[in-house]
Amino acid sequence: MRYYTVLLNDEEKVAVSANGKDLYLLENYKDMDALIAAGGVQEIPKDARKVSPEAVKLLSPIPRPRQDVLCLGINYTAHAEEAERFSKESFGGERPYPIFFSKRVCYSQGTDAPIPAYTGLVDSLDYECELGVVIGKDAKNVKREDVPDYIFGYTIVNDVSARNLQTRHKQWYFGKSLDGFTPMGPCIVSADEFAFPPKQRIACRINGDLRQDSSTANLITGITDIIVMLSEGMTLKAGTVIATGTPAGVGMGMKPPTFLKPGDVVECEIEGIGVLRNYIEG
Amino acid sequence: MRYYTVLLNDEEKVAVSANGKDLYLLENYKDMDALIAAGGVQEIPKDARKVSPEAVKLLSPIPRPRQDVLCLGINYTAHAEEAERFSKESFGGERPYPIFFSKRVCYSQGTDAPIPAYTGLVDSLDYECELGVVIGKDAKNVKREDVPDYIFGYTIVNDVSARNLQTRHKQWYFGKSLDGFTPMGPCIVSADEFAFPPKQRIACRINGDLRQDSSTANLITGITDIIVMLSEGMTLKAGTVIATGTPAGVGMGMKPPTFLKPGDVVECEIEGIGVLRNYIEG
Repeated sequence: MRYYTVLLNDEEKVAVSANGKDLYLLENYKDMDALIAAGGVQEIPKDARKVSPEAVKLLSPIPRPRQDVLCLGINYTAHAEEAERFSKESFGGERPYPIFFSKRVCYSQGTDAPIPAYTGLVDSLDYECELGVVIGKDAKNVKREDVPDYIFGYTIVNDVSARNLQTRHKQWYFGKSLDGFTPMGPCIVSADEFAFPPKQRIACRINGDLRQDSSTANLITGITDIIVMLSEGMTLKAGTVIATGTPAGVGMGMKPPTFLKPGDVVECEIEGIGVLRNYIEG
Repeated sequence: MRYYTVLLNDEEKVAVSANGKDLYLLENYKDMDALIAAGGVQEIPKDARKVSPEAVKLLSPIPRPRQDVLCLGINYTAHAEEAERFSKESFGGERPYPIFFSKRVCYSQGTDAPIPAYTGLVDSLDYECELGVVIGKDAKNVKREDVPDYIFGYTIVNDVSARNLQTRHKQWYFGKSLDGFTPMGPCIVSADEFAFPPKQRIACRINGDLRQDSSTANLITGITDIIVMLSEGMTLKAGTVIATGTPAGVGMGMKPPTFLKPGDVVECEIEGIGVLRNYIEG
């Protein structure tokens, strides 16, 4: 199943599609958190109202995450290399432990929505296309073999980053957490649609130009390790989104570094999920 | 005024006290977020039910923060020095920008509650007594002169930290965000009770032994700068807690470093707010 949060006549609704084309409203669930808590739906309810995709606006599947979005830093090998060139910090080599950080999200926008440029504050706006794992039930001390039971589904997260703020405040948090820096979408694909762990093509285009192109099979720390490690210390509440890191090809890795500017169009794509498309607004 | 979240007959309630002794229930507010949204109360309502402090259990004033708790790293000069000795990273000298990070808080415990030791996972459990600033209304692009209007009040935060996790995952987030690592309390003191910015004694005792002893007047980046800087990029929603950093005297700064162990009692005290007392449970 593919789950959406949509705007229909100015009202937020949850919707479902089996094929990504025919869209049905799930009006018994007040939001995606409620649908996740219920474990999703096994089939399209017989009495569900069908809506035309043209009649709705797609929002982020989880427009107001209950907590910060958990993130992995430097979780694809080639991205470690480009990040080191840019920051002169060492991320590669022997690295037995992943880098965890988080993004504060007051409001996550969906596909076709703007990303603010913050001209004056930000001089190095960058994109990071990532596979987002959506936790389905409260997870604490999860055993390796049980990890798939805790995954509700997958989405696309653009971990938008202001490289100058990320660097100057030492910790990455602020430069990753500005309002509008966490677009998600276009939908959540239920976990049963992919083999586990998912091995999907992941790509990002800027104004049509292919910049990132890899596979989610290439994660350094895989989904099982991530969830086992985090849940040893913290409860991952249902609805938590974990952004699993970005492959090589971001703006800071280019020679010379090339950042986003007003008018640019960023398309994050993961095979089987779709395209999350946003434009920079100055 | 002093605002509390209390447990009375297994029910969570918000309460208020003018003198820190006589406690009155504010039953029109479902939780502290609702009270903050209303701007607190100007006086004890005439019909408020008085309860004996012995009849209630004090909880964290904000047991389930809506978002992560925002934090300042290395915001007292002498703490910069002890942190550098421990981590070999440089935090002092010319530092035009503060270090921002955050703690994920699934549940914040109050005074007299345990802090889990995480034996096996954590070998270097440490305390950090901090002044917590509670935001009173949604704050974006706040001007310097308007900062006091956005502050609802002040509380005490113990920014409990697992130094081994903080170091091994590079970013500080995970080592600061384990379940039970954000005790707060015993109450929120409304902003009008202190001069602005507050210049209160801040201290921490371990098993009665004075370890931290400074003044909130010594913040490197003050409350005005913190709120101006953060709100330039992110909306600080009403109810947001900002932990403003800890003074010198934490366990990693001792010679040799001395960490918390099961049975230890941590008392964080700020003049005019009270004592947040927690014990380590192994």
